[in-house]
Amino acid sequence: MQPLSNYQTIIAEHFNQISLKKEPKGLYEPIKYILDLGGKRMRPVLTLMSADIFNADLKSALPAATAVEVFHNFSLIHDDIMDDAPLRRGNETVHEKWDLNTGILSGDAMLILAYQFFEAYEPHIFQQLAKLFGKTALEVCEGQQYDVDFETRDDVTIPEYLKMIEYKTAVLVAAAMKMGAIVAETSEENANLIYDFGLNLGIAFQLQDDYLDAFGDPKTFGKQVGGDIIENKKTFLYLKAIEFGTTEQKEQLLHLFSIQPTDNTDKIESVKQLFVETTAADATRQAIQNFTQKAFSTLEKIEIESTKKEMLKNFGEQLMNRNV
Amino acid sequence: MQPLSNYQTIIAEHFNQISLKKEPKGLYEPIKYILDLGGKRMRPVLTLMSADIFNADLKSALPAATAVEVFHNFSLIHDDIMDDAPLRRGNETVHEKWDLNTGILSGDAMLILAYQFFEAYEPHIFQQLAKLFGKTALEVCEGQQYDVDFETRDDVTIPEYLKMIEYKTAVLVAAAMKMGAIVAETSEENANLIYDFGLNLGIAFQLQDDYLDAFGDPKTFGKQVGGDIIENKKTFLYLKAIEFGTTEQKEQLLHLFSIQPTDNTDKIESVKQLFVETTAADATRQAIQNFTQKAFSTLEKIEIESTKKEMLKNFGEQLMNRNV
Repeated sequence: MQPLSNYQTIIAEHFNQISLKKEPKGLYEPIKYILDLGGKRMRPVLTLMSADIFNADLKSALPAATAVEVFHNFSLIHDDIMDDAPLRRGNETVHEKWDLNTGILSGDAMLILAYQFFEAYEPHIFQQLAKLFGKTALEVCEGQQYDVDFETRDDVTIPEYLKMIEYKTAVLVAAAMKMGAIVAETSEENANLIYDFGLNLGIAFQLQDDYLDAFGDPKTFGKQVGGDIIENKKTFLYLKAIEFGTTEQKEQLLHLFSIQPTDNTDKIESVKQLFVETTAADATRQAIQNFTQKAFSTLEKIEIESTKKEMLKNFGEQLMNRNV
Repeated sequence: MQPLSNYQTIIAEHFNQISLKKEPKGLYEPIKYILDLGGKRMRPVLTLMSADIFNADLKSALPAATAVEVFHNFSLIHDDIMDDAPLRRGNETVHEKWDLNTGILSGDAMLILAYQFFEAYEPHIFQQLAKLFGKTALEVCEGQQYDVDFETRDDVTIPEYLKMIEYKTAVLVAAAMKMGAIVAETSEENANLIYDFGLNLGIAFQLQDDYLDAFGDPKTFGKQVGGDIIENKKTFLYLKAIEFGTTEQKEQLLHLFSIQPTDNTDKIESVKQLFVETTAADATRQAIQNFTQKAFSTLEKIEIESTKKEMLKNFGEQLMNRNV
């Protein structure tokens, strides 16, 4: 296993070399545009890392890693349309820079392109990867649908919320790691264990994102702190506050989540105070800890050298100790 | 080979039996809705017919046939959004009945579901089918993009137009037939020949659609006769009229294609007259004939019993002698 930055360099170089078709421009330029925006490339890095852990040649994992990243960017284009988001990674979203139809069609093409990267593999590996990919991609769509549904529901439960973030975010992290294992042709058990590791770490990561959105350091958190509060998003923190709060606290929170003031400073502070007072903040930190521990205990069962387990654990700890 | 209606019955029964996931409803109900609208199911019928011709068990071709039809319906949902179409098969389009986001997301899920139907096959067949499907699906997207581009271009050439209808329509017809051949595990040569048969027949069919849109019998043509003229669509008829017309005729046509009168009766009649006078109508009939003949001559080379060739030819003639 290598330092993360090594995998990132390999992925970045690989994406620079990918040559997409040029025509029709209206279809392929937006694809090149969003892929060039870069981002952390965390998912393809995980595919390489997993392949490395199970002793595969890193190069052999590149097509699968590429498929995962292209799929992720497809989902960003279509999600940005659905959320009417103007910006992505500090730049105009595809449907803003071009138009709605371009966003839809270029996204569709990226979903197909993602599948095509698997064609580099032999039939039996190809089928395993494509099956996992299909299942995962459908779950991501289901997660997005649940997220949309939750906006207009006021009876979302914690298990429903966890299922939503599992589908919308964690399954792709898990699948990215399992693909590395499939390419390496390790045992099915190992492949399933690394999937579970990725799944639980993915859930922990998303919960931490919810937490940092309220309690992160504005200097280092990538997004606007309090963004979820401004948008009245029913995050884990919110659902836990509603679960634990007194009648009065619940009423306060419901009121705060029904207003859209011009200046959100007071609203954000009041909501954060309620998150702390109802012990929702504690409960969220505890849940993050639990899912992280679940991921680490999965590691124990994987049949790899203990140094590799230690490195995977270090990676997980780094990821979870971010305050950005 | 069986009568068309037999294949149609098999497909209809199969679609009645397909059970999709139920939750989240917001994702799966629109999918069930559009699949239940039915339509002629021409593409999956062609997959079964082709499998039958190459002596495969019809049942073994059903998953591939289903994939083709589900993909086709995915493309209808997304195309209807892009065209802002209110109706599909006489019913509300998905984005009209639900909303834009539902149309995008349910369409995405159908594209993934289409791939999943191939999972019923053994790895080497699976890979052949998925490769052909990916190539075809991407071409369909490219065809749609060319179609969008052509709306705002006034220098579209006949070869460009032919490429657009080939990609947007004919490649899926061709792939549907080749999939039957792949499932039947016939020779690669046979599979490529049936692809070419489908491709040329598909182009002929689309050109005939252009022709009938202007010159079809309003009593039997499924769509509004003159619809393309009302929408100022640059069809094969239009491009040929511009190519063959005198300066005066061209000017008349350009003028007619720049106006949007409340009552289109006169406009339609004038445009049709120009299509006839410039010999564009003759040229279109000739092109339909040429592509049909090209399809039939491909048949000669396929290694199957001559009775089967005769039946495929009859099918093609029936299809091309429609005046609906």
